[in-house]
Amino acid sequence: MSLEGLRVMGIDPGLTRCGLSMVQAGRGRQIIPVAVGVVRTPSSAELAERLLRISNAVGDWMDEYKPDVVAMERIFERGNVSTVMHTAHAVGVMVLAAAERGIPVHEYTPSEVKKAISGNGRADKKQMTNMITRILGLGEPPKPADAADALAIAVCHCWRAPLIARAEASARLGAWG
Amino acid sequence: MSLEGLRVMGIDPGLTRCGLSMVQAGRGRQIIPVAVGVVRTPSSAELAERLLRISNAVGDWMDEYKPDVVAMERIFERGNVSTVMHTAHAVGVMVLAAAERGIPVHEYTPSEVKKAISGNGRADKKQMTNMITRILGLGEPPKPADAADALAIAVCHCWRAPLIARAEASARLGAWG
Repeated sequence: MSLEGLRVMGIDPGLTRCGLSMVQAGRGRQIIPVAVGVVRTPSSAELAERLLRISNAVGDWMDEYKPDVVAMERIFERGNVSTVMHTAHAVGVMVLAAAERGIPVHEYTPSEVKKAISGNGRADKKQMTNMITRILGLGEPPKPADAADALAIAVCHCWRAPLIARAEASARLGAWG
Repeated sequence: MSLEGLRVMGIDPGLTRCGLSMVQAGRGRQIIPVAVGVVRTPSSAELAERLLRISNAVGDWMDEYKPDVVAMERIFERGNVSTVMHTAHAVGVMVLAAAERGIPVHEYTPSEVKKAISGNGRADKKQMTNMITRILGLGEPPKPADAADALAIAVCHCWRAPLIARAEASARLGAWG
């Protein structure tokens, strides 16, 4: 089962800082980088204004690059409660932006992403950046630096997608069987 | 400072069940009920589908009733973590719907709402329903029953709005003074 040409948007969600990436699956395990960026919103702005900016930025990316699927990092429910709630609000508007365009969303935990990219679920930031630079054949680490996570999430989905598609096909066969 | 004619949309946020209300400020402390309802989404549906339904329902209410302001219950950060995260996603899309239409959003804690309506920050559900029925001059308790909270939030804002407006006016005078 080949997914050559599959275009994946990676999202590392946040309200203050949201990493975005776009990649395209090539032959075999090859992956072509298309775009990378970070949307920032000032913590001095009101929540409504911040969510509107994120929704517009993410919507513009979807309309310009037309991804087949969105891969998003699943947010942690521990840590600073107020940050988690802010991130959850941002996730809501980004999942909505995908739903309004009929684009499916897949979520991955940080350790799933790390394992897919480096073989180690506990890889550190430097190892991940090095792997992503190599996988995408970049001459130097991706910039902005804090967008590397969004690229990793998209690459993770490219490599997991054939397995997901195969599992779904088996499930359908089973149901029809 | 009179806010007669102010139209307030009340929202009791949730992903599975979201209470909506619309009221209009009359003379003095009088409040006229305009509409009340509940949006439900099945927990069997995907998050994207559920957020899309809530966004559409809330947007339809805003477009039909044209509220001047949205009053929303501030969600609790304790309790079942997964429910809180789901509610936070729903809050994100509802705040976005207001922002897209230029409608300001005010948040109130449950105890602020209870105190404004009944004078008691720890009033129980039955006391609150009785007070809301009386305040709005309804012949019987509002239906659906689980929409009474959304009415209480909207009434709370109607009564707090003159104080908020006065405080904002003072702050402006102070800045200009």
